[in-house]
Amino acid sequence: MTNIKTKVSKVIQAKTMPDKPDLKYLFEPRSIALIGASHHEDKIGYKILGNIVSSKYPGKIYPINPDGGEILGQKVYKTIDEIKGEIDLVTIVIPAQYVFDAVKSCSNKGVKFLSIITSGFSEIGNSQQEKEIVNYANEHGMRVLGPNIFGIYSARAPVNATFGPPDIKSGSVAILTQSGALGIAMIGKTRVENIGLSSIISIGNKSDIDESDLLEYLVMDDATKVIMMYIEGVKNGERFVRILKQITPKKPVIVIKSGRSKKGATAAASHTGSLAGDDNIFSDIMKQCGVIRAESIQEAIDWSKYLALSNPPKGENSIIITNGGGIGVLATDACEKYNVTLYDDLETMKKIFSDAVPEFGSMKNPIDLTGQAKFEDYQRSLNAAFNDDDIHSVICLGCEAAALDTEKLFTFIEEAISNSKPIKPIVLSFFGGARTEKEIAFYKPRNIPVFSDVYEAVSCLGTLYKNYRNLQYRVDTIDQPASAETKSDTVLIENIINKVRLDKRNFLFSYEGMEIMKMAGIAVPRTGLAHNIEEAIRCAEEIKYPVVMKIVSRDILHKSDAGGVVLHLDNKEEVIDAYQAIIHNCRRYNPYARIEGIEVSEMAASGTETIIGARRDGSFGPIVMFGLGGIYVEVMKDVAFRAFPFSRKEANNMVSQIKSYPLLLGVRGEKRKDIDGIIDVIVKVGEILYEHKDISDIEVNPLITYEEGKGVKAIDARIILTRLNESQFGQAKTEEEK
Amino acid sequence: MTNIKTKVSKVIQAKTMPDKPDLKYLFEPRSIALIGASHHEDKIGYKILGNIVSSKYPGKIYPINPDGGEILGQKVYKTIDEIKGEIDLVTIVIPAQYVFDAVKSCSNKGVKFLSIITSGFSEIGNSQQEKEIVNYANEHGMRVLGPNIFGIYSARAPVNATFGPPDIKSGSVAILTQSGALGIAMIGKTRVENIGLSSIISIGNKSDIDESDLLEYLVMDDATKVIMMYIEGVKNGERFVRILKQITPKKPVIVIKSGRSKKGATAAASHTGSLAGDDNIFSDIMKQCGVIRAESIQEAIDWSKYLALSNPPKGENSIIITNGGGIGVLATDACEKYNVTLYDDLETMKKIFSDAVPEFGSMKNPIDLTGQAKFEDYQRSLNAAFNDDDIHSVICLGCEAAALDTEKLFTFIEEAISNSKPIKPIVLSFFGGARTEKEIAFYKPRNIPVFSDVYEAVSCLGTLYKNYRNLQYRVDTIDQPASAETKSDTVLIENIINKVRLDKRNFLFSYEGMEIMKMAGIAVPRTGLAHNIEEAIRCAEEIKYPVVMKIVSRDILHKSDAGGVVLHLDNKEEVIDAYQAIIHNCRRYNPYARIEGIEVSEMAASGTETIIGARRDGSFGPIVMFGLGGIYVEVMKDVAFRAFPFSRKEANNMVSQIKSYPLLLGVRGEKRKDIDGIIDVIVKVGEILYEHKDISDIEVNPLITYEEGKGVKAIDARIILTRLNESQFGQAKTEEEK
Repeated sequence: MTNIKTKVSKVIQAKTMPDKPDLKYLFEPRSIALIGASHHEDKIGYKILGNIVSSKYPGKIYPINPDGGEILGQKVYKTIDEIKGEIDLVTIVIPAQYVFDAVKSCSNKGVKFLSIITSGFSEIGNSQQEKEIVNYANEHGMRVLGPNIFGIYSARAPVNATFGPPDIKSGSVAILTQSGALGIAMIGKTRVENIGLSSIISIGNKSDIDESDLLEYLVMDDATKVIMMYIEGVKNGERFVRILKQITPKKPVIVIKSGRSKKGATAAASHTGSLAGDDNIFSDIMKQCGVIRAESIQEAIDWSKYLALSNPPKGENSIIITNGGGIGVLATDACEKYNVTLYDDLETMKKIFSDAVPEFGSMKNPIDLTGQAKFEDYQRSLNAAFNDDDIHSVICLGCEAAALDTEKLFTFIEEAISNSKPIKPIVLSFFGGARTEKEIAFYKPRNIPVFSDVYEAVSCLGTLYKNYRNLQYRVDTIDQPASAETKSDTVLIENIINKVRLDKRNFLFSYEGMEIMKMAGIAVPRTGLAHNIEEAIRCAEEIKYPVVMKIVSRDILHKSDAGGVVLHLDNKEEVIDAYQAIIHNCRRYNPYARIEGIEVSEMAASGTETIIGARRDGSFGPIVMFGLGGIYVEVMKDVAFRAFPFSRKEANNMVSQIKSYPLLLGVRGEKRKDIDGIIDVIVKVGEILYEHKDISDIEVNPLITYEEGKGVKAIDARIILTRLNESQFGQAKTEEEK
Repeated sequence: MTNIKTKVSKVIQAKTMPDKPDLKYLFEPRSIALIGASHHEDKIGYKILGNIVSSKYPGKIYPINPDGGEILGQKVYKTIDEIKGEIDLVTIVIPAQYVFDAVKSCSNKGVKFLSIITSGFSEIGNSQQEKEIVNYANEHGMRVLGPNIFGIYSARAPVNATFGPPDIKSGSVAILTQSGALGIAMIGKTRVENIGLSSIISIGNKSDIDESDLLEYLVMDDATKVIMMYIEGVKNGERFVRILKQITPKKPVIVIKSGRSKKGATAAASHTGSLAGDDNIFSDIMKQCGVIRAESIQEAIDWSKYLALSNPPKGENSIIITNGGGIGVLATDACEKYNVTLYDDLETMKKIFSDAVPEFGSMKNPIDLTGQAKFEDYQRSLNAAFNDDDIHSVICLGCEAAALDTEKLFTFIEEAISNSKPIKPIVLSFFGGARTEKEIAFYKPRNIPVFSDVYEAVSCLGTLYKNYRNLQYRVDTIDQPASAETKSDTVLIENIINKVRLDKRNFLFSYEGMEIMKMAGIAVPRTGLAHNIEEAIRCAEEIKYPVVMKIVSRDILHKSDAGGVVLHLDNKEEVIDAYQAIIHNCRRYNPYARIEGIEVSEMAASGTETIIGARRDGSFGPIVMFGLGGIYVEVMKDVAFRAFPFSRKEANNMVSQIKSYPLLLGVRGEKRKDIDGIIDVIVKVGEILYEHKDISDIEVNPLITYEEGKGVKAIDARIILTRLNESQFGQAKTEEEK
């Protein structure tokens, strides 16, 4: 029923909307109009035109200004109507109050994209007009980038339609940024670091075009080898996850997500108008998508540059070559931090390096050439490493020393790289005074990956390996729940939900939740609902002793506190006593409580308690949580999150990610627990939430897990429905009910 | 007995050794001889002389070389005997095989310190000669720095007796380094960063003089404001801890400890010959001592420089001033990471900044001056912050923007600092292209704390606050176990240990361990040792039912596996059955097991299980460990370490440091646990180990902890003695026993 209704409304909506223009025309516009082109050099409307012209944009340029005339040698049009022919991209830089009219004026010119630079919309609370503009644009076949942005640079056109610095180097890194100021500064920074960009796009308020739209273009764009994003909040995370999963097996995505801290999240929310979600959820879901997360901008820039320039490794064996033990040890620490595997086959190492390493040096990893090492010693060792198939990447280090000519060394590396022989991944770190710093400053922009700090160097190689492993162990790209056989009985579950809705509740009674679990094929204790003592006895005898009894009342949420739970009932007499005690206690606890009955359940054997939760997240839609029971979740916060849908393999990643995972593998001589059983329930709970849009939260707590092969059992399931006035479907339904 | 013996031997040793020379003469030598002065410019023996001369050393300089002549205008002596008058410091740079003879030649010249540059001693396995040299030197009133070092620079002399770069800037940072190559590179780096040094000393193999010796001088040295150390392994950690605790309440100590990773630890061990201990122990003990630990060298350098130059804060309220929301959010995240407290009294903020913040800006922290902010907006806001007593430190940020003249801003900050008005602590971070990078490169060496990366800037302020808090909440400086009243009964404990030694065991039986606990005033279950069924029944009846029974046998370590433990015995019959079953099981398990009897104990009520351990650590001497029982220690590795002795306050820090601490505070409506009781036992267990040198390990597991006021109970105590052939005292005793 639900499904039909929503599908119908989608169809209706789709009919009223024209087709969306191809994003190709945003990145490769054949013509650009600039509404707000200015004659004044210090105005943004002048600067953008200057950038378009100086970027050697080959298409048609239409500056628009009611004064007409000429700017930077370009004829100025007084209105858009004067322009003949279609316009692919219109950039708007006029004050906010005139923007809507300008957008309207575009509707007859075949305009495909609007890049609205102007600020003063939802970021300062003015959301209404922003929405109207987007609706109008969409209804007329146009899409909106921004507002509150600096524009777009695309190397493919080429065009620099931003008010940032003019001299952008073309290359293979694409940058998407939610912050305009940071983005403009980043353009400058990439210039200093000599990083080539395939595009940089400011997405600002994301009123229409968001990261996902742009990523759909970038995944197909051959020129883009690495994607870097600065984001503060995620809207429509389901789509975002879907597209990320498609991209990362093809090209690396590096994300800086600010608002990690609670305070940061508040600051982010206040300045972009989008909600920054729980940082742990974000982190886990990025991991799930194979996205690499950077903490600082510098990290993101270093990593993007390195991934764009370095060859991929062919294996995990890394070696350190150094002229100092101290810096070698620091690099070893850094390798552990950034997950770089140091090769430790001493026999092979000796074979490879015996001719290269001087007396008193060490052929163990780190290979220590000693403080007396000359360029030639490094050269010999590096050549040995480059030429041996057992070695896959190199960390080349040193302290400034009189004996070592680092300039020669850096030139040697530069030649090795530019000889276009595909050399192995290498990072360099040299530490010292003015001479070393000067050489690093000279060679770094020549794209030699040399850093003064060892940790920075190793972090780059670690990121290359993160990407390597993403490609090896494929991220989970499924975007539909798994096979039909595991699917739950949809109609029966809908019936229960409808019953609850009719009963004007937005929560399910425990026995209803358990029924849904059962329908989904999740093992639950045998249970019955008794309305009087006789029924309770009959239930208990059918179930078999020992049993548990619990009050069922919409007015009593904390059953134990009310004295509404009795465990370990071994016979008829105890059931009778328990029934009377529960009714008595609950009446005393709340004389007005409506009592639906008493639930009688099998008393499950004890085991390892786990918790599985699922909910509709504001950012990411359906997400699933897993953790070990009770204290591990509550005190140790030892939980893992994933966006649903995902495969069993990903569910397994999720389970093995938690710190208390060894408890499931079995500690202290205990046997391994039924992890397969847990994975089953994780996937099923995800499916229930995914399939039934009326459900907002499911918490299976505890899910008792037995030894491997002996299964799991859901002891309690708390299910909450979406609030009717919060969900469109809910609204539709209430109207129907009237 | 023990104490008397060791005291006596110390006295004897002290009598044979002359007084140690005052370290003053290492840092402020009145005369320096250089054995191995060279006529060849590319020799170290030339370079050091050059550095001594060019550093304008005002004392007497005696180059020594059998060829005689003159080097760099200095008369060269053929032998040390030619020199008239005393020599405070002799630097030795001749090949290893001649060093001992050179040291011997120093013994008649009143030499106080030997700086042995030469390598080829314990670092390559040649420990024997190194020891002989040190013994000879010490016996003749000389102390040895090195060998395997680059020398010493001291601003106080001034003298640069190193073979590092010549131009060291004098200032207030002292550097101690175990790695020579890193140290020399650091000299260069400090010059680039314009950091002034009070001294830099290479400690190399630490054959005699170690960090602790040098720290004893540096704590008194008024010129030294900040101490930075690079260490790979700790020897004689007890003394190190003692001196660190004295220093950090006076001046900050920043440590880079390499060998964090397992692999790094191996690498460190192979290259310096000193053992790198467990990194968690090191980390926790540094925390205990108020030492600030850096991960990378760059961090350590940035932090040292900032602490040396910045005024101390007067409180915790920090504000962020920015021209961009994005970078402001990143800084907020960084503040959470580095524990910088953002001021959030919006009312006061509005009062302070209402005149300074432009329209559309934000007066909430981060204060957002918007992308249009000019220098004057920053100036107004900064002045407002500087002049208001509610604000204690400032993070000033920005993205490169056309409107903002950062050069003016940096000059303004420079003037504010150099006006010697004590301005509030401030850090700056500006992000952008060539212009910004150039200005940062210009102003940073002028000692404006400006960084391109936000995290780097905030980490400096965070370190300043770490030090501020160390000064506020005083590190625990006690170096003796607490008051006499809590002291355990030393003689009785010694008696038990002697009995175990006589019995040729190096472990205590559980009941012996428990007896020691009792003597130390730790609550234990009532226990008796039974040798037959009648005794077992008598014990059980004295103790009162229920009881627990356990086998006591030196040949059965895993009692449960042997079927040697029975719990929950409620009456005489059960005791009889259990006795027979235990004997039967254990005989089957190991027919040759010597059975000393069966322990009968009170069955303690259940509670929260904790573990307290103490052992003699190879690096730090007596250390104490605390964690929650079982899985928390084994799987989650959730433990805290401290070097003993420490105060109850520090024991409390230790307990509250673990992640599972909320379990002791009471979760899910449980009451707070008896944390005072835990602290009692931590301190007592530390004392037992500290007082009784024969004990190498104590593990109280579990220590059951009840509700607050209801105490704790040690259920089992495993005590291991030092191996006799491993401890000097042990050897003495075995000889005595013969």
